[in-house]
Amino acid sequence: MAIKNRDDYLQALKKMRPNIYKFGERIEDVTTHPATRRTVESHAIAYDGANDPNLQKMFTTTSMFTGEKIHRWNSMMQEEGHLISNMRLKRQNYRRTGTCTGGVCVGWNAQNVMWAVTHEIDEANGTNYQERLKKWILHAEENGLTVAGALTDAKGDRSLSPSKQTEPDTTLHIKEIREDGIIIRGVKAMICSTAAAQEVFLLPGSVYGEDDKNCALSCVVPRDIEGLTVVEATRPSDQREFNESGIQEVPDTGITQGWLLFDDVFVPNDRVFMCHEYQFTSKVITYFTANYRACIGACVAGQGDVMIGASILMARANGLSSKTFMSKLVDMSVNNQVTFGLGAGALAIGKKHPSGTWIADSLTAHTNKVMVATLPYEVKRLTQEIGGGIVETGCMPSSKDLDSPEYGEMLRKVMKAGSCSTEARVKAARLSEWLTLGGGIPGCMHGGGSPDGAKLVVRFTTPMEEYVDYARKIMNIEEEIQDPQKPLKK
Amino acid sequence: MAIKNRDDYLQALKKMRPNIYKFGERIEDVTTHPATRRTVESHAIAYDGANDPNLQKMFTTTSMFTGEKIHRWNSMMQEEGHLISNMRLKRQNYRRTGTCTGGVCVGWNAQNVMWAVTHEIDEANGTNYQERLKKWILHAEENGLTVAGALTDAKGDRSLSPSKQTEPDTTLHIKEIREDGIIIRGVKAMICSTAAAQEVFLLPGSVYGEDDKNCALSCVVPRDIEGLTVVEATRPSDQREFNESGIQEVPDTGITQGWLLFDDVFVPNDRVFMCHEYQFTSKVITYFTANYRACIGACVAGQGDVMIGASILMARANGLSSKTFMSKLVDMSVNNQVTFGLGAGALAIGKKHPSGTWIADSLTAHTNKVMVATLPYEVKRLTQEIGGGIVETGCMPSSKDLDSPEYGEMLRKVMKAGSCSTEARVKAARLSEWLTLGGGIPGCMHGGGSPDGAKLVVRFTTPMEEYVDYARKIMNIEEEIQDPQKPLKK
Amino acid sequence: MAIKNRDDYLQALKKMRPNIYKFGERIEDVTTHPATRRTVESHAIAYDGANDPNLQKMFTTTSMFTGEKIHRWNSMMQEEGHLISNMRLKRQNYRRTGTCTGGVCVGWNAQNVMWAVTHEIDEANGTNYQERLKKWILHAEENGLTVAGALTDAKGDRSLSPSKQTEPDTTLHIKEIREDGIIIRGVKAMICSTAAAQEVFLLPGSVYGEDDKNCALSCVVPRDIEGLTVVEATRPSDQREFNESGIQEVPDTGITQGWLLFDDVFVPNDRVFMCHEYQFTSKVITYFTANYRACIGACVAGQGDVMIGASILMARANGLSSKTFMSKLVDMSVNNQVTFGLGAGALAIGKKHPSGTWIADSLTAHTNKVMVATLPYEVKRLTQEIGGGIVETGCMPSSKDLDSPEYGEMLRKVMKAGSCSTEARVKAARLSEWLTLGGGIPGCMHGGGSPDGAKLVVRFTTPMEEYVDYARKIMNIEEEIQDPQKPLKK
Amino acid sequence: MAIKNRDDYLQALKKMRPNIYKFGERIEDVTTHPATRRTVESHAIAYDGANDPNLQKMFTTTSMFTGEKIHRWNSMMQEEGHLISNMRLKRQNYRRTGTCTGGVCVGWNAQNVMWAVTHEIDEANGTNYQERLKKWILHAEENGLTVAGALTDAKGDRSLSPSKQTEPDTTLHIKEIREDGIIIRGVKAMICSTAAAQEVFLLPGSVYGEDDKNCALSCVVPRDIEGLTVVEATRPSDQREFNESGIQEVPDTGITQGWLLFDDVFVPNDRVFMCHEYQFTSKVITYFTANYRACIGACVAGQGDVMIGASILMARANGLSSKTFMSKLVDMSVNNQVTFGLGAGALAIGKKHPSGTWIADSLTAHTNKVMVATLPYEVKRLTQEIGGGIVETGCMPSSKDLDSPEYGEMLRKVMKAGSCSTEARVKAARLSEWLTLGGGIPGCMHGGGSPDGAKLVVRFTTPMEEYVDYARKIMNIEEEIQDPQKPLKK
Repeated sequence: MAIKNRDDYLQALKKMRPNIYKFGERIEDVTTHPATRRTVESHAIAYDGANDPNLQKMFTTTSMFTGEKIHRWNSMMQEEGHLISNMRLKRQNYRRTGTCTGGVCVGWNAQNVMWAVTHEIDEANGTNYQERLKKWILHAEENGLTVAGALTDAKGDRSLSPSKQTEPDTTLHIKEIREDGIIIRGVKAMICSTAAAQEVFLLPGSVYGEDDKNCALSCVVPRDIEGLTVVEATRPSDQREFNESGIQEVPDTGITQGWLLFDDVFVPNDRVFMCHEYQFTSKVITYFTANYRACIGACVAGQGDVMIGASILMARANGLSSKTFMSKLVDMSVNNQVTFGLGAGALAIGKKHPSGTWIADSLTAHTNKVMVATLPYEVKRLTQEIGGGIVETGCMPSSKDLDSPEYGEMLRKVMKAGSCSTEARVKAARLSEWLTLGGGIPGCMHGGGSPDGAKLVVRFTTPMEEYVDYARKIMNIEEEIQDPQKPLKK
Repeated sequence: MAIKNRDDYLQALKKMRPNIYKFGERIEDVTTHPATRRTVESHAIAYDGANDPNLQKMFTTTSMFTGEKIHRWNSMMQEEGHLISNMRLKRQNYRRTGTCTGGVCVGWNAQNVMWAVTHEIDEANGTNYQERLKKWILHAEENGLTVAGALTDAKGDRSLSPSKQTEPDTTLHIKEIREDGIIIRGVKAMICSTAAAQEVFLLPGSVYGEDDKNCALSCVVPRDIEGLTVVEATRPSDQREFNESGIQEVPDTGITQGWLLFDDVFVPNDRVFMCHEYQFTSKVITYFTANYRACIGACVAGQGDVMIGASILMARANGLSSKTFMSKLVDMSVNNQVTFGLGAGALAIGKKHPSGTWIADSLTAHTNKVMVATLPYEVKRLTQEIGGGIVETGCMPSSKDLDSPEYGEMLRKVMKAGSCSTEARVKAARLSEWLTLGGGIPGCMHGGGSPDGAKLVVRFTTPMEEYVDYARKIMNIEEEIQDPQKPLKK
Repeated sequence: MAIKNRDDYLQALKKMRPNIYKFGERIEDVTTHPATRRTVESHAIAYDGANDPNLQKMFTTTSMFTGEKIHRWNSMMQEEGHLISNMRLKRQNYRRTGTCTGGVCVGWNAQNVMWAVTHEIDEANGTNYQERLKKWILHAEENGLTVAGALTDAKGDRSLSPSKQTEPDTTLHIKEIREDGIIIRGVKAMICSTAAAQEVFLLPGSVYGEDDKNCALSCVVPRDIEGLTVVEATRPSDQREFNESGIQEVPDTGITQGWLLFDDVFVPNDRVFMCHEYQFTSKVITYFTANYRACIGACVAGQGDVMIGASILMARANGLSSKTFMSKLVDMSVNNQVTFGLGAGALAIGKKHPSGTWIADSLTAHTNKVMVATLPYEVKRLTQEIGGGIVETGCMPSSKDLDSPEYGEMLRKVMKAGSCSTEARVKAARLSEWLTLGGGIPGCMHGGGSPDGAKLVVRFTTPMEEYVDYARKIMNIEEEIQDPQKPLKK
Repeated sequence: MAIKNRDDYLQALKKMRPNIYKFGERIEDVTTHPATRRTVESHAIAYDGANDPNLQKMFTTTSMFTGEKIHRWNSMMQEEGHLISNMRLKRQNYRRTGTCTGGVCVGWNAQNVMWAVTHEIDEANGTNYQERLKKWILHAEENGLTVAGALTDAKGDRSLSPSKQTEPDTTLHIKEIREDGIIIRGVKAMICSTAAAQEVFLLPGSVYGEDDKNCALSCVVPRDIEGLTVVEATRPSDQREFNESGIQEVPDTGITQGWLLFDDVFVPNDRVFMCHEYQFTSKVITYFTANYRACIGACVAGQGDVMIGASILMARANGLSSKTFMSKLVDMSVNNQVTFGLGAGALAIGKKHPSGTWIADSLTAHTNKVMVATLPYEVKRLTQEIGGGIVETGCMPSSKDLDSPEYGEMLRKVMKAGSCSTEARVKAARLSEWLTLGGGIPGCMHGGGSPDGAKLVVRFTTPMEEYVDYARKIMNIEEEIQDPQKPLKK
């Protein structure tokens, strides 16, 4: 029975080998440790959704392989509608957690993208990668797994390819090919939600040539596999997560981003889906970014929805009518819907890959990435503008001060503003701070690649010369007019 | 045989009663008169498309009623894909004409919207409007008609409803109901492409209450019907269209916007699809604006594509490599694709009406209207920035001066800049001027309603209180916090 | 007595040799011809100001040479305050004419810039240019002259310097040096207000090296000097200026931009202020652009003020309260004041040149140019948004149609909206059209150089490495970190 | 001798009564405690400047009262130039500390503003407030004091004035007037740099009517005065300031914002400059905000300068040439210079108050506030865009992890990217994080009042009806056209 619930999920995590560290210490139980329990809670909420009569249509679906009911995040996405459901699930998850739940997102995208790429490799090379992948997908479906995904490598010197680096471990690579599997080594960086994941889907982080074929690798590993150490990054204000008493200063939900150190990790063949086929790394990147950058519009829209809610709360907690800020709230909603709608549009004019995988329109998806890297910043700015000085820099005494026997009472007395309690006002302000300056920031600008990279795709997918021809024809200009070929001479 | 060609179309127009005026004079033949031949040419290009092996898939489709091949702009749109095809057709038309071809767009939308509304009226009132409409659609399909659409009334005092106006003719209304039809009277304003149209589809221009039920009317009339006079508006630089010699200063394509004066026009019953059913006017507006504002993203995208082409042309004509301006060109492409992709997204998450008509998602469609009212202005600004001073204000001597026996030669000599001829440079500059300051401006900001109206829809379709609940739950705020109810007291 | 009035000015213009052409025809009297009388009127208004008790403090000042009262636009600007007065005069002129009055602006700036440059040349080379200039300035002061200024050359191929052009006349150059003066030849392009000017101040259009020393020339010539032909550019909707009956469709004020063809023009030595000193052309450009780009903020602010007024008029003429649009009107005012205030700021942190001339801060002035090339476009967009569809594309019947005996009455009846007359509404709409799409557009984006040129100055005047040092020091980073020197290798 | 140095300053702070708290604990020595030593260091840097031969001209000046050399931040500002020097000092301070140094800014502005207001009160009421103020200024000059300033009250319910609040302590007020002084009580909120200040200048936080005359109070108190308790707010990532080992994660400089609890504090008469004169509170607000909002442009410009430097550092530390990001760096510089130049412009067109105090132009100053509330957010966004994912969310392991004996070495090895050390890269990334998401954010959006408040000033200082008249005159519209007076009727 595939539909796991919160308890199944938490129990599964508790059983794993402790291989996650933060602030120099090993985390024995990710479900209870303050550094990781919030991202686990975020994902547990998704399991709740799958078991909630009102939400289960959004959080579950039917396996195209077995016809069984499965968690939607383990499913194949072969129609436009499947990916729009993906977007809706993400927006909803953001609305309920305030932040990213990468464990029900990145691995999901990875499995679908690799479905297409293994199809191509198998067809070209006669390999059986897709069969291996299918076997793993069935396992994931059956166990209702949470699967993080990892593309980004530590990279080292950006001006050199992996094989030219002084330090080869800056990119995850195949160190050795054995008969029964491969030994991989190196570092993936800034990987989201590993602490909440049961497995991690590994993809090549860039397009590689023959010299770098060792980096052309895709496989999936248990998160606690022998040889893998995860070091969590420290994020804005994350030390507040360790304050467990007094007025709550951070949500129970959250996100983590970790550095994954692979120290000669053995991966058995049936979990390996690419091994040296560097010619297909461009396909991985192309398909992954198209679908990822289309759908990420839903993520920032969902967080934007929460910012609308938090702003209204804050206005009221300040004693003001939210109507005062209506034009700002409408602007926020417009910004949110642009990224959501544009993502849906990229899917609507996407195409079906011969393998069945649906691939978003590249130009539109990358256009959306540019929007995702700009519009949410305006939404954040407006959240701070509506919230007032108390939100802008989180300018309030700490929970400990509010509990001070000496001056806590006076503070609480004067911090009350609207009809709500001091406590509610403080929590509302902390929420807006967390969403705009704190741990709730998901990292969508660079997550899945930089906006400058997206602009390069826009550049090369815009048929500029064709547009020149339209312009010429409209004005009956019969001459061809070309770019000057010689350099400037002055 | 429904697929008419350019000639069929032009002959049909020539046969019509001359009832169009501009600059105080009657236009005898719209296909040759300088004030109207450009918009006719724009539509003729669409007929070319329908007969061009490479484009016919875009410009034709199959009648859902007869199974016959028809012009796409006469078809029913009952699937997301049908409306995305509508968007592609419009973008393509803009690319080939540089401007709006409302005669293959507004009537088309109107017929589909009224398909849904007549379904509702018939169901509620037992009328047979949809049957009448179907009959007319079959006629339009069969004759491959170009059908303009008219919503906007002259309106008069914006603070008063039609029945309160001093001057009742400010809104088109039913003056009399006869047994065999209705007499309509009043003025529709700023109606696009009437000069190129064979028929005009009339819709109510606003949501009306019982007092204004006379304005709750929908019907379709031949463009040259007895009692109808069309007065074309004068547009930026349209007098250039009358200069027919020398270097071409305006394209052969173009657009017109007319004022339609209905002086007791009789419309027979079988062309009447709404008559007094004011309760359904809100449906007309809702469905019409949703689909119109989704699809208009394709229009401005297509014109933006031409601006990219015109800018590259202009850079080259100035002797510069277009690469110099690459980041601006990419920004233009991003802006274009936002409105196109967002329109497609509004359709992707739209819904099927019980009548079969596909209706775009309202929040997303109106969000797109806000984008359409802003992003193209930046594209225009960039067109002027790339083009240089000569484009910014069209700052060149006229064609007559370039032909002056006294100084024309010196002018032509020094106006050459890049590798192309003076003539090509002048035409390229005039094209950019026409697109940004001249007759090529389509009027998409207010066409189909104002952006402020769109923001109102955004406001009321954004579930703000639901977002407040999400925010509260994330932060465990259990109190309800409401807007202060009393007014400010100071 | 230097303070000339409107009549003196008009009479002076009437006496000049007719050497201006438009639409292929010679203009016999610039003060009455429809193509030029509007720009003349704009300048006559400045003479009115100089004779108006309420405005004369703004429009006149005291000669630093003679102590006599003179027109401010003939004065020396040697203090920050003098240039701020220049800005105030320009803003006021825009408010009263709706557009540019280059004849009381460009020559004025040129004379002050050349005061500094001749000081430097004389000091370096022992020439007596400044003395010549002073003599001419005294003449200009005494006769209260309107002096256009001309920098921009036709240029030809932008990738080649003047001496490399196939066609040497693309840049104004010294053809011959005689004992008593010089012969100049070539074409200055897009020169503002020549038709309203009595003299034209010529400056080099770029920075030149030794090969191009023939283009290193500055002098001042009567506008009707033998050998000079001016061809006026055709501008958006300028043919409306020829419709002289019915409801007024364009203001009585206006602007022109002309191409100046110099066909072997002799300039006597005492009017020559630079002749071959190419080493100083960079100074001309540096000083001119700094002061010009600081002060141009006043121009676009003044036009923006009129757009605020026109928008309020239009709202009311549509029957709506202007309060409905208050947040847009405030945004417009903010945009206007940014360019004005930033210009004033560039002056406030400017410096006194050893010659006495005040020079604006370069970084700030060029920053303002970037603003001038963007913010007014938003003001225009808002003008169209507030004005409605009738403004967006000037979508109204022509004056002739409003007078049609057949349908004029019906049109006029339904075009009335607010409490004002149809005529007032039409004129208000035409004003907004003229300001945003018509002849009132001043060309401030490229006038005085392109925004990309300004960004280059920003780039090279921003002390980026100094900022790196601040950043390093704040974080105690002791290593120097330099840009990678080798090209990317992949 | 007034020019104190770092040591004088630190010793003076050490001697003060410990009345500052954070995280529930009292800070015994602000110069060494991790919560406050950074803001103290920021101010000590200003004392360094005053004693640095290269900077002393910027950091010192001459007393207008005594002719002695004094710290500039204790001086009177009576000329435009004095305030531009104020701006330069602030920009420089930001460049050297990365953040706000309110103790050399707010009290300084307050003393000058009160110079004008006491002049007016004395003139109206025959009081001798200005004499008292002068006496205190001489004391401040002589002792080279650092003086924080406090306007903002806790406020309570924003819809009620102070006298209507349930809790009177939400606004600082006069509880009792005694013969020798006053007793004040209540709470000032979000007050910057108190921990680094020797005295605090108190001003009314709003415009008050007669009912609230108890809140019309101005005086200056020692920071450690009996009855005053300061509770520092907790700010983004401020707990990092307590990690004192390993790679440095925050600068040695910083800022604090405190809540000031006045529990019946006695202020002797000679330190009281306003007491009940509510009619003059509007003057305090008007003058204070004009000068504050003009000059704050220098603050955000200075921080923006550091962001340019940090971005270049980060690009290089990532192994990329900073030239790759030149257009973004130029945009950042443009944004910085807009707020600086616009502030200078507001001063340039300001006016001298009869008391001698220079007051910035209100419209321009408030326009600048709107810019300050928007442009720096774009600079921050660009800092994150250039810096990459590692900057966007500070996505790096903590210093403790980098020192882990188990995995620290592998982490450090792969975190090296450009030619610099891992340590330098980590510090550069932390700096960008601190500037955009961390403790370096100064709070300039709401500091000194909200942008919406500024827009209200823009609204009421823009002469809109005058602009309507200009528009009418340009188009010869003789009718007056007024706003419709009756409400909408539909």
